[in-house]
Amino acid sequence: MSDKTAQTTHSIHPILAGRWSPRAFAAAGVEPEKMLHLFESARWSPSASNEQPWRFIIGFKGDSTHEKIFSTLVEFNRLWAHAAPVLLLAIAKTESTKNPGKENPYALYDLGQAVAHLGFQAAAEGLFVHQMGGFDSEKAAELFVVPAEFRAFTAIAIGYQGDPEMLHPNLKPMEYAKRNRQALSEMLFSEKFGQTPSWLQQE
Amino acid sequence: MSDKTAQTTHSIHPILAGRWSPRAFAAAGVEPEKMLHLFESARWSPSASNEQPWRFIIGFKGDSTHEKIFSTLVEFNRLWAHAAPVLLLAIAKTESTKNPGKENPYALYDLGQAVAHLGFQAAAEGLFVHQMGGFDSEKAAELFVVPAEFRAFTAIAIGYQGDPEMLHPNLKPMEYAKRNRQALSEMLFSEKFGQTPSWLQQE
Repeated sequence: MSDKTAQTTHSIHPILAGRWSPRAFAAAGVEPEKMLHLFESARWSPSASNEQPWRFIIGFKGDSTHEKIFSTLVEFNRLWAHAAPVLLLAIAKTESTKNPGKENPYALYDLGQAVAHLGFQAAAEGLFVHQMGGFDSEKAAELFVVPAEFRAFTAIAIGYQGDPEMLHPNLKPMEYAKRNRQALSEMLFSEKFGQTPSWLQQE
Repeated sequence: MSDKTAQTTHSIHPILAGRWSPRAFAAAGVEPEKMLHLFESARWSPSASNEQPWRFIIGFKGDSTHEKIFSTLVEFNRLWAHAAPVLLLAIAKTESTKNPGKENPYALYDLGQAVAHLGFQAAAEGLFVHQMGGFDSEKAAELFVVPAEFRAFTAIAIGYQGDPEMLHPNLKPMEYAKRNRQALSEMLFSEKFGQTPSWLQQE
């Protein structure tokens, strides 16, 4: 197994530090009951005007939904996602429910929040989540008869962590690679954009 | 105090169940060191191609950044957000860093995820977060000299929970109101969009 716990500059909750996005998944299945905890977490996510613009389609390895979601993935993601016991489509309602005919400009932002909530719960249950932009959203809309006011935005693999050695040789280095992020001083400002707060020590 | 712990159908982590978006904030300040835990959590959020398209501007009550962020809020939010010890702007980098000149279509989705991570850490530390779409993004861009490839997307109030009785009379009912969400059967499908999975009991 690859331990990729975040090397944080400031302490954060262990559920957040331990979360990362592997490509190697174990063969063990995920119980539907456990998945309900993840969706319940997404359900209680906040959203603009409480529009709750998130929907999910779930497939378990071996069923036709899993096969169909898999068929929408780009080739690179097919190299590894076949082993994931659960595949999801995360779908945004891009039209406002409260103002029909108008766009909900917060739809994607709020879908991202809901998926993050689902991801915390997954991490709390020992599961790992890998989100993918690399899939054919239009093909997914066709296969699952997604209405026009919705947009399939990400595909998501979920399962228990597997042995990196089982991965395609092209993928192994990524599974062991050090995780990296911009410094806090590059993302946190005060007074004006780009100005590091005086109380933030240089890192 | 108003206890609005989510009445969940399926069990979820107490940090997620206890999180909600109050308008009443206590006068107690939030230590900058504690805020660093929140930003460190956002920092380790996942993003498409690891673009990390999130930036934050932070103001503490009494400083000029807090005043400027407050001045961008719509009137309704000014009724309560003045009491929040911390105000943030959450900013998305909408242009791709890896492909300059091209849009990053995941910018808002990933910003939403980063804010959710920040909110999870806040809840773990006993803090509450209230996100607002109701602010003038263009005015914020002007006041903080935000470059064109970035977009101020939400304003965020953070602090300890206050007494709902201190709120403007128009706001009190919302602070005590029951929280509501769509049922799982309305957001979770299999086989095709809108079809409740057979293993999901009707609620």
